[in-house]
Amino acid sequence: MIRRDRPRVVVVGAGFGGLWAVRTLAFEPIEVLLVDRRNHHTFFPLLYQVAAAEIEPEAIAFPIRGLLRRFPNVGFEMAEIRGVDPEARRLETDGPPISYDFLILAPGSVEHTFGVPGVAEHAFFLKTLDQAIDLRNHILASFERAAREPDPFLRRRMLTFTIVGGGPTGVEFAGALAELIARPLRRDFPTLDFREVRVILLEAMEGLLPGLPDRLRAYAAARLRRLGVEVRLRAMVEAVEPGCVRLKDGTRIETGTIVWTAGVRGNPLGEALGLPTGPGGRVPVASTLQVPRHPEIYVIGDLALPEGSGKLPMVAPVAIQQGALAARNILRALKGRPPQPFRYRDPGTLVTIGRNAAVAHVFGRSFTGFPAWLLWLGVHLVRLIGMRNRLVVLSGWAWDYLFYERVVRLILPSRPVRDE
Amino acid sequence: MIRRDRPRVVVVGAGFGGLWAVRTLAFEPIEVLLVDRRNHHTFFPLLYQVAAAEIEPEAIAFPIRGLLRRFPNVGFEMAEIRGVDPEARRLETDGPPISYDFLILAPGSVEHTFGVPGVAEHAFFLKTLDQAIDLRNHILASFERAAREPDPFLRRRMLTFTIVGGGPTGVEFAGALAELIARPLRRDFPTLDFREVRVILLEAMEGLLPGLPDRLRAYAAARLRRLGVEVRLRAMVEAVEPGCVRLKDGTRIETGTIVWTAGVRGNPLGEALGLPTGPGGRVPVASTLQVPRHPEIYVIGDLALPEGSGKLPMVAPVAIQQGALAARNILRALKGRPPQPFRYRDPGTLVTIGRNAAVAHVFGRSFTGFPAWLLWLGVHLVRLIGMRNRLVVLSGWAWDYLFYERVVRLILPSRPVRDE
Repeated sequence: MIRRDRPRVVVVGAGFGGLWAVRTLAFEPIEVLLVDRRNHHTFFPLLYQVAAAEIEPEAIAFPIRGLLRRFPNVGFEMAEIRGVDPEARRLETDGPPISYDFLILAPGSVEHTFGVPGVAEHAFFLKTLDQAIDLRNHILASFERAAREPDPFLRRRMLTFTIVGGGPTGVEFAGALAELIARPLRRDFPTLDFREVRVILLEAMEGLLPGLPDRLRAYAAARLRRLGVEVRLRAMVEAVEPGCVRLKDGTRIETGTIVWTAGVRGNPLGEALGLPTGPGGRVPVASTLQVPRHPEIYVIGDLALPEGSGKLPMVAPVAIQQGALAARNILRALKGRPPQPFRYRDPGTLVTIGRNAAVAHVFGRSFTGFPAWLLWLGVHLVRLIGMRNRLVVLSGWAWDYLFYERVVRLILPSRPVRDE
Repeated sequence: MIRRDRPRVVVVGAGFGGLWAVRTLAFEPIEVLLVDRRNHHTFFPLLYQVAAAEIEPEAIAFPIRGLLRRFPNVGFEMAEIRGVDPEARRLETDGPPISYDFLILAPGSVEHTFGVPGVAEHAFFLKTLDQAIDLRNHILASFERAAREPDPFLRRRMLTFTIVGGGPTGVEFAGALAELIARPLRRDFPTLDFREVRVILLEAMEGLLPGLPDRLRAYAAARLRRLGVEVRLRAMVEAVEPGCVRLKDGTRIETGTIVWTAGVRGNPLGEALGLPTGPGGRVPVASTLQVPRHPEIYVIGDLALPEGSGKLPMVAPVAIQQGALAARNILRALKGRPPQPFRYRDPGTLVTIGRNAAVAHVFGRSFTGFPAWLLWLGVHLVRLIGMRNRLVVLSGWAWDYLFYERVVRLILPSRPVRDE
């Protein structure tokens, strides 16, 4: 089936980086194989809205095979990568091995616990759809349990939600959770005393959203506080225990839910494949995104640490631009041309905080409030893959905006889902 | 919090029967508590479309608390019922006990294996949303595995899907699965040989859809065969083994997927509560739906076997009518009036087989094809709860109809879900 007269490029990971690499390689006289352990692409920027019961998980997932149908030279395999033999140019998988002429590794990132005790065991994460579903189910189940709990200590603990990390994910989720509680859940649970409900956002640094202009950071903190979120700065987590977060200053927070958004690190696949890794488990590569001594292997996206680019943020635009570049460099290599270095064109940052509220740092300008929020909506709707997904997400937002209703207040599946 | 000056009616189960009982009791001078172990109502008639990757599970689920908001006298508890003390009029749960003055039991039904060996262990069922999600994920994963499987025997087995039971669920699912395979999956898997894919429908009786006029039954079988379904009548399953179904006539069918729709029985809750049960685990009740010697306990829906009604089908209209009657009988009892007996008004039967094809037996008339299919669509869309759910389901149908596309071809959650 494999026409080995044409060079074969294998792309591992169907996130933003992998998809853009595949798009760039489509319709070229090469064989392309995309490999992922899931059968769908996930639109990560809206993951927190799944956890906040606003949109269905299906609405931000898209079947990979559906995306690839229009590319005659691109195939797909749902497989787990177990190892690589760079000399033989072969990937070991949970099934038959996969050989390649060029390899693009784009497995993304996973949560980073920084070795804080108890985080891996007791915290929720927001890095995969399974995790987002699990967190949504847990939040809704906490309210259901609290409604039946006569012990005030236990009830208050069930109703205390602690988010660790004041970056974009922590800020966006804190806002979405506060708004879920403020109207939809308040109407759902008329017998609960909502003064017992707390949303706490812990950030180790001096302020939220590090890296953004101070005005935007102050706006974000003020908006979250107005939504009832307790924003605690300079709060360093020492340990997480069942039902409790301990801070370095000795504070104990009794909390039934700990959401850890404090850090991400390169996917352990880099280490598993025997590639040398640097800070945050990322793989150092040349500025051309090639692995030293193996110019046929490219690493892109959250896993890559390209020379000369400084510390790039782990965001979709970086992955997209690197995916396209790695693909172009492979096409150049096939034509005997030298590879080009990566230069990041930063399109800016958009973070939403809640209804009519967001911060934008784009086109060299900073703005907040309704215009930033509208821009956020538009950009995310346009970037989302699939017309029906856009329709479903837009209707979820409309129900939220018009009726103050979160339509996916469902504990479903009703049995726990746990990501490995 | 409980104002015990007003009589308290507890309704167990938020299916069709429970919801219609609650609706009938709303705004009356009584306290009503609805109890379910899930936080959502499930619209069972479309469960098979979830398993066939056509609509999202969320689209046929609705948050119970959202349904009850407009009823000031109705509360909800998400709880598992463990036992009943009829003398003390108290339900034991997994949390605090619940006391009642009147009790309506509407827990529904579960799959019935008829003691056939291996069914409970190796078959998939279509009775809960978790099961439907699990089946969808398994079907899609079977195609992904088959695409990588070099062994033709194993590959053919992975691609053989066997449905046991030629009632409405088996017929509707067989048609939906055949259409999922015929276009969307055929386009998704260009390297697979689709002559290796089989859908087999086994029915123990002489024909499909027992109870319907012969013309409709013949039409259903012919339509399914035209969709490529192998319809085997008089096929009695002796045992289910991993990867294999054995029939009583000695036939062995090598199959990676067995979907058991051959029978349902009353929810085991009836037995767990110590109620005497009759055929199919159903609880014999008076024609007024009251339990003998405990006129304050009503049993309705799939679990009830009311005197003088014959063998009622386990369908939504029966549950809805019984829910309303049980509620009215409680209101009558409170006014000192005698209870009324149950009389089933059969609204007819609608079964869809696929695109433009259905059978209808309504208003004393039988018809097939496009008019029956349109009627099926309309009835199900109107009955579905929630405007946004209707929008999402309608868009799923539209994508299927217009683009031959199943939008939810997602293995999600990516870890297995298993119903207890």
